[in-house]
Amino acid sequence: MSTKQTRTEKDFLGTKEVPVDAYYGIQTLRAVENFPITGYPMDVELIRSIAIVKKAAAMTNMNIKRLQPQHANAIVQAADEVHEGKFDDQFIVDSIQGGAGTSFNMNVNEVIANRAIELLGGTKGDYTVLSPNSHVNMAQSTNDVLPTAIRISVLTLMDKLLSTMENLQKGFVAKAEQFDHVIKMGRTHLQDGVPIRLGQEFSAYARVLKRDIERVTRTRSYMYDVNMGATAVGTGLNADPCYISEVVERLEEYTGFPLKNAEDLVDATQNTDVLTQVSASLKVCMINMSKIANDLRLLASGPITGINEISLPPRQPGSSIMPGKVNPVMCEVVNQVAFQVIGNDHTINLASQAGQLELNVMQPVLVFNLLQSLRIMNQAFTVFKEYCLDGIEANEDICRENVEKSVGVITALNPHLGYEIVSRIARQAIEGDRSVRELCLLHDVLTEDELNVILDPYEMTNPGISGAHLLEDEYQMKMSNNKQGVKK
Amino acid sequence: MSTKQTRTEKDFLGTKEVPVDAYYGIQTLRAVENFPITGYPMDVELIRSIAIVKKAAAMTNMNIKRLQPQHANAIVQAADEVHEGKFDDQFIVDSIQGGAGTSFNMNVNEVIANRAIELLGGTKGDYTVLSPNSHVNMAQSTNDVLPTAIRISVLTLMDKLLSTMENLQKGFVAKAEQFDHVIKMGRTHLQDGVPIRLGQEFSAYARVLKRDIERVTRTRSYMYDVNMGATAVGTGLNADPCYISEVVERLEEYTGFPLKNAEDLVDATQNTDVLTQVSASLKVCMINMSKIANDLRLLASGPITGINEISLPPRQPGSSIMPGKVNPVMCEVVNQVAFQVIGNDHTINLASQAGQLELNVMQPVLVFNLLQSLRIMNQAFTVFKEYCLDGIEANEDICRENVEKSVGVITALNPHLGYEIVSRIARQAIEGDRSVRELCLLHDVLTEDELNVILDPYEMTNPGISGAHLLEDEYQMKMSNNKQGVKK
Amino acid sequence: MSTKQTRTEKDFLGTKEVPVDAYYGIQTLRAVENFPITGYPMDVELIRSIAIVKKAAAMTNMNIKRLQPQHANAIVQAADEVHEGKFDDQFIVDSIQGGAGTSFNMNVNEVIANRAIELLGGTKGDYTVLSPNSHVNMAQSTNDVLPTAIRISVLTLMDKLLSTMENLQKGFVAKAEQFDHVIKMGRTHLQDGVPIRLGQEFSAYARVLKRDIERVTRTRSYMYDVNMGATAVGTGLNADPCYISEVVERLEEYTGFPLKNAEDLVDATQNTDVLTQVSASLKVCMINMSKIANDLRLLASGPITGINEISLPPRQPGSSIMPGKVNPVMCEVVNQVAFQVIGNDHTINLASQAGQLELNVMQPVLVFNLLQSLRIMNQAFTVFKEYCLDGIEANEDICRENVEKSVGVITALNPHLGYEIVSRIARQAIEGDRSVRELCLLHDVLTEDELNVILDPYEMTNPGISGAHLLEDEYQMKMSNNKQGVKK
Amino acid sequence: MSTKQTRTEKDFLGTKEVPVDAYYGIQTLRAVENFPITGYPMDVELIRSIAIVKKAAAMTNMNIKRLQPQHANAIVQAADEVHEGKFDDQFIVDSIQGGAGTSFNMNVNEVIANRAIELLGGTKGDYTVLSPNSHVNMAQSTNDVLPTAIRISVLTLMDKLLSTMENLQKGFVAKAEQFDHVIKMGRTHLQDGVPIRLGQEFSAYARVLKRDIERVTRTRSYMYDVNMGATAVGTGLNADPCYISEVVERLEEYTGFPLKNAEDLVDATQNTDVLTQVSASLKVCMINMSKIANDLRLLASGPITGINEISLPPRQPGSSIMPGKVNPVMCEVVNQVAFQVIGNDHTINLASQAGQLELNVMQPVLVFNLLQSLRIMNQAFTVFKEYCLDGIEANEDICRENVEKSVGVITALNPHLGYEIVSRIARQAIEGDRSVRELCLLHDVLTEDELNVILDPYEMTNPGISGAHLLEDEYQMKMSNNKQGVKK
Repeated sequence: MSTKQTRTEKDFLGTKEVPVDAYYGIQTLRAVENFPITGYPMDVELIRSIAIVKKAAAMTNMNIKRLQPQHANAIVQAADEVHEGKFDDQFIVDSIQGGAGTSFNMNVNEVIANRAIELLGGTKGDYTVLSPNSHVNMAQSTNDVLPTAIRISVLTLMDKLLSTMENLQKGFVAKAEQFDHVIKMGRTHLQDGVPIRLGQEFSAYARVLKRDIERVTRTRSYMYDVNMGATAVGTGLNADPCYISEVVERLEEYTGFPLKNAEDLVDATQNTDVLTQVSASLKVCMINMSKIANDLRLLASGPITGINEISLPPRQPGSSIMPGKVNPVMCEVVNQVAFQVIGNDHTINLASQAGQLELNVMQPVLVFNLLQSLRIMNQAFTVFKEYCLDGIEANEDICRENVEKSVGVITALNPHLGYEIVSRIARQAIEGDRSVRELCLLHDVLTEDELNVILDPYEMTNPGISGAHLLEDEYQMKMSNNKQGVKK
Repeated sequence: MSTKQTRTEKDFLGTKEVPVDAYYGIQTLRAVENFPITGYPMDVELIRSIAIVKKAAAMTNMNIKRLQPQHANAIVQAADEVHEGKFDDQFIVDSIQGGAGTSFNMNVNEVIANRAIELLGGTKGDYTVLSPNSHVNMAQSTNDVLPTAIRISVLTLMDKLLSTMENLQKGFVAKAEQFDHVIKMGRTHLQDGVPIRLGQEFSAYARVLKRDIERVTRTRSYMYDVNMGATAVGTGLNADPCYISEVVERLEEYTGFPLKNAEDLVDATQNTDVLTQVSASLKVCMINMSKIANDLRLLASGPITGINEISLPPRQPGSSIMPGKVNPVMCEVVNQVAFQVIGNDHTINLASQAGQLELNVMQPVLVFNLLQSLRIMNQAFTVFKEYCLDGIEANEDICRENVEKSVGVITALNPHLGYEIVSRIARQAIEGDRSVRELCLLHDVLTEDELNVILDPYEMTNPGISGAHLLEDEYQMKMSNNKQGVKK
Repeated sequence: MSTKQTRTEKDFLGTKEVPVDAYYGIQTLRAVENFPITGYPMDVELIRSIAIVKKAAAMTNMNIKRLQPQHANAIVQAADEVHEGKFDDQFIVDSIQGGAGTSFNMNVNEVIANRAIELLGGTKGDYTVLSPNSHVNMAQSTNDVLPTAIRISVLTLMDKLLSTMENLQKGFVAKAEQFDHVIKMGRTHLQDGVPIRLGQEFSAYARVLKRDIERVTRTRSYMYDVNMGATAVGTGLNADPCYISEVVERLEEYTGFPLKNAEDLVDATQNTDVLTQVSASLKVCMINMSKIANDLRLLASGPITGINEISLPPRQPGSSIMPGKVNPVMCEVVNQVAFQVIGNDHTINLASQAGQLELNVMQPVLVFNLLQSLRIMNQAFTVFKEYCLDGIEANEDICRENVEKSVGVITALNPHLGYEIVSRIARQAIEGDRSVRELCLLHDVLTEDELNVILDPYEMTNPGISGAHLLEDEYQMKMSNNKQGVKK
Repeated sequence: MSTKQTRTEKDFLGTKEVPVDAYYGIQTLRAVENFPITGYPMDVELIRSIAIVKKAAAMTNMNIKRLQPQHANAIVQAADEVHEGKFDDQFIVDSIQGGAGTSFNMNVNEVIANRAIELLGGTKGDYTVLSPNSHVNMAQSTNDVLPTAIRISVLTLMDKLLSTMENLQKGFVAKAEQFDHVIKMGRTHLQDGVPIRLGQEFSAYARVLKRDIERVTRTRSYMYDVNMGATAVGTGLNADPCYISEVVERLEEYTGFPLKNAEDLVDATQNTDVLTQVSASLKVCMINMSKIANDLRLLASGPITGINEISLPPRQPGSSIMPGKVNPVMCEVVNQVAFQVIGNDHTINLASQAGQLELNVMQPVLVFNLLQSLRIMNQAFTVFKEYCLDGIEANEDICRENVEKSVGVITALNPHLGYEIVSRIARQAIEGDRSVRELCLLHDVLTEDELNVILDPYEMTNPGISGAHLLEDEYQMKMSNNKQGVKK
């Protein structure tokens, strides 16, 4: 490809010198010149997907007798090769490009055309043999091809992600079981609350992630409606009705996804809401995962001057200067992926809102961000599960000691003594460093036996009133008779 | 309420002077002092909802014989009165408040307690008669009461909104029918595209809005899982299992919503994802509505120096200086509501991500924004439909003239002549101010009869190849024989 | 105002019945009908500011002999009364309104006109005496009046905020001094780091806030350029050049702000970047304040099962169920205000980006959010300082104990032993529960005397190598000779 | 590098096989395993910058006699080679990584150490010759090295961007001059306003961009304060005071930037506000540029069915299906870059807010986004200026015709007839298709001569009252005597 030799190509705006052995052509080169923005080429999954679209279109056009078999066959073989990744280095237009993706579509049309020309025995660049627009792009427009390819790519990456999420969710479930017996203090506002089991905490993480799987999955079916045959603005100009239905059947066959013709092609061509919706579901998921990562980092803080109720597996030395330090790096990368995905969602929203009339020309930046979000979540979840979640250990002694020395268990006295009295005992305990038990005995509000029953922390982690049977009269707390007993 | 006379109330932090006839108490006053932030009190819908929760709890506590009937009855009556709005001026804590909503819950507990005390013949502030915490808040925590009330409020406002959205959607459908015959130019990139019918454009608006209704509706069922009985951290400490199930049955009865106990109370107490998800669906809707508002403003631009294909009903003089000017104000307010809702979503995301361990203490700012979004969307859609959408008129002459003078119809020649030749004719037409028809005749590539068939713009607005029967050989365009015919 | 009697007013779109004693008129009523969105009227500061603008315009128009003195004087008196707040209940258009603020400007024009008519002995609604548009709005457009009033409002609220920020900053400085002697463990990644002084932490908070003051202050001068005289699109149509310069001089005089004519009125009329910039500076500040609030909540966590290195003043009972609990509510409200301000910034960005050609019609939602941000920051900072920051206490014993038992001090051994050896000792200390000192003696790598010098934690909180004089040879660590000494 | 031969390296967590000829080491490999997230390596500018930091540190450590000359010289040479790009393929840790950048710093330490070992005649991996931590990282921590390198990178890319922005700004100024004589209709709300000159519009673009340059420039000086010597948490542990000042002097010398020691190293280590601030200034700029791109796309819309007041240079065929179509692709790419930068800013805000106590561990994702924003803005502005702005042409005939047929010029009649009368004439003109001039004559409110003077559109584009001398009595409009003349 590094030869200096060129061929001359022309379009209605003029001519350009194209490297003689390049499969791309003049329009690709124009785009490369116009859009040297990120340095990142189009996502490889999108290249795979659009190759399928081109193949389906060619097969259909042949079937409805609009494309000659030799042309169709050459296009199909070229598209297959593109799909296999043989020409990845020929896709050189930037991920962020003006023109609603036309440059990318033309890059594909040109590569397939030139490969097909080669297969037909022609010379690359001789589009009288086979034309990127008239043949490869027959009955197509960027405005239906790209949205269709995007949906296929999203489905492909989403299915990988969903599978990873299910794995991760199971990981949380396993930890919930493993830690089900570990009693610890619950915290609200970062302040001592009431006892909870570590397993209950992990079970809550599993639950919210289950809803995330559900939320992402629910956006999946919106991807099935593809707008092939919409052509330029959704009216189907230049697309034979037979073509429109057959091309989608072929796509369904080639991809294995239950794709179908969008009911309203004008709508499906101009609106990007279904992509925005996918991103929104990813964002909600990452908000939750970021909270979980924060919790884990907090619970694992220390090891000496922090909470240290759990230990995360050490993955790498944590500091270039502090010897022996190990940091919660796998949680931190989840946080950062969350920030990236949430920022991507923002870009996607802006792009989506910028649609005008028959088309949203901002789809390149939209799809760049959406596919990135799908990818990095999949990657982050995979390593987070394997390298962090699966190896988390509970520091049971610390958890239990926290419960024992905490004042929070006092809440269980409410039904017996009433909130007001208990509050005063609580403040005395917090300020005076005496235990709740001690103070209750001192104030003579409950007996040692009663306290043994009521203050059992394990009891407190399941619904119910600790020591309910002790309530003398069902309507009557001890509150009244003890009102004078506790002085502030 | 403006009397200077006060009563003294105390809690475990000290005492405070409360206006003698106030129904709120010391904790409300503390919150007012601590949080003079927005000046907006809590949303009135939330006051209604939490009153229902308090009633359901009191009835249940009586039933399971934890609360004496005379106490319960007084609480129920007080809660009913709060629900009717009799004490709206007593809810004075700010919408943005620290403390996870405890101040709001205590404001409610205090108002109900004092009203109940009054009903029981006591003196306001004498909590030995009936206690805000021990009786009104019995078996409850802010951490289950507030999330439950939030869900009821969201359901109430969401149902109003959904009904308004359905109305709006029907408005677009009606316009789609009304404008089905209006031929006009479609535009992509704001550049002349190919013909489309105005009705198709409105139909696309109706479609995307239909998906928005679906998306919002799908979040509805997530609101049914309420965490009553979770108490402080979801473990159900101090909540009798009988209470837990009965209280939700009562809520279902009082609200008419199919509420049920969340399966995992720990999860339901700490996670706000289902609220974030509602906001995400509202945001996606407003992105779409903002695009639609933009389109309408663009199509109505002018009237003289703009596109002017439609006219919006004049609603008010548009300028304090430019006489006779009328602006698309109803669209502009939709745009602004979109910006507000999208910004609110951002705040909601930040609040949601800030949950820690057993609780998300940022729920006040979250619910403030969420309820606002639901409200302003409902308001904006109502007036937008009535004052704008329903009165939109098509300027059919302008629409048709645009089609007639446009070069865009040339796309229909592609199947007949091939993209390359047609491109050259197109550039000549654009640059030389001669019509496509004229140029085709000049270059002798198609006859007048053929052109009459192929260039029929109405044909172009439905799928198919214009003049398909003219293609001599099914595989063969005229491309080849005309290759030399058109020179650039 | 609640009378049913009305007067009939008309404009070029028709007639409307206006309450007979209302000062507002037909255009206000149209706007109320069109925009029942948030229920919040325009910010009172904006009403004050626009009254000043109207006064300045009337005085100037009189001076350049375009407005008769009796008209001008009546307008000036009416504007003064509006500024004093006498007619606050007459400003009834919604904060979110279509029409770029024309409705608000007309509300003002109508109120001032009708009050002036009254002063001139006429009947409200008889605009032949004095016209809202021709007289009150003379040589003005909403498009110059509103941006000017916005800038005055922003300056007014910003100055209050800056003063509050300076106070807050001093509060952090005072705490930095108070805590300068408190040695504690620094933490990175929430993991034990190396010693630091609590005062250093508060000093860092003071520093970043100082930069925030600087950042906000730097946006101030951008507010001085007002576009009075721009009229409709910035060209100054209908605005006498003498008027343009004099009106701004008067504004300068009336407001005390060094206002001046924007150099390019077209630019100043269409662009909202200077407002976006103010919001950006507020957002950066709240990101910092949110981090600080998080830190304080973390350091105050516990009191028993958390870090508990500092205590925040108790402000209110923290729980409706957990007795004695006190939460960091003042920090939490700062976090929530941060989320609100960041969300507002998002809305402002969207509104700002939506400007088109000669005007940004989305200014109502922009200014609604911007003034809210300025207000709630001011309120939150005021109470946060008084009720939280000023009363923070250090738990010095806990801080010191953490240092003593931590392994982090080991970093000071690096220059003496090299990172690799020290790492191995560190892991042994962390895993084996033996102190660094103990292990160094055990491995015979440093003597007790040397350790006393090197491990002094106070030394570690200032730049320098602890025990630098002990390094035998300046280039030579003990690393080499001890290489075999420590085995993993 | 593709050899299967490996060497064994170890750290305090264990051992790993490193490719025998790799310059990176065990910690790099751990990071590669832990963080396979984006697939993008660290920004090359950051590699350049950190190499300079390592060189400065080594030279300084030698000077203060902490590092032996042969060690220092080897490190310096290795760092120089890294700076020259000789080892770019050895920097393989991902852009998004947990651990606050320690992995990247260690990647650099290892590459430099191994190259230095090689230069010293040792075998790669034999860290007894020279250690990545003890020698290359001497007196450093990731927590001071990375923030310092980030600031150098930001300054480097910012200066490129500022130079590009200045070029772009001059481009707008040139167009403003070129189009200064082109009279056209101004539009507000997309509705016909009053005349303006095209040059005035471009001048406004130049102005706002000038402020953007100022805003970005103002953040520059915040980059000068570097925290070298802060080491782990800003206290300067293990950093000799002489080192601290000298190392920054060297950095200043090597980079040419006026770097200096941050006054408060604790603050400078934990806070990322100055980076957030840079991003905020970029975001404000892109909001403005997006508005400008929107305006240009709107003014160039058509060419036949749109506004078409300007023509953008054709850059590439605009459609794969619509022949001859050319789209405003260079504007569209600016819009998309705006969305990306605004989304990046969002990520940066989230990362910045997530700092905790002594460190912000989210800096990798922060710097990834910040450097990307700087880069893509520079790229987009460069091509936008060259390929779009410079070639914009005015369609003067269309501009003038719009003015002639518009009703908007009627605003100039206000001072002569009063807003109320003129409004009625305006509605008659808009609805009845008669010109303003015609109607004025018909209603006999102004003479032909008067109208010639007052309705001169060029006059209207500069401040002043058209036909001011015609006003008979300076206080007196014709309003009163003509009141009956115009009937609605």
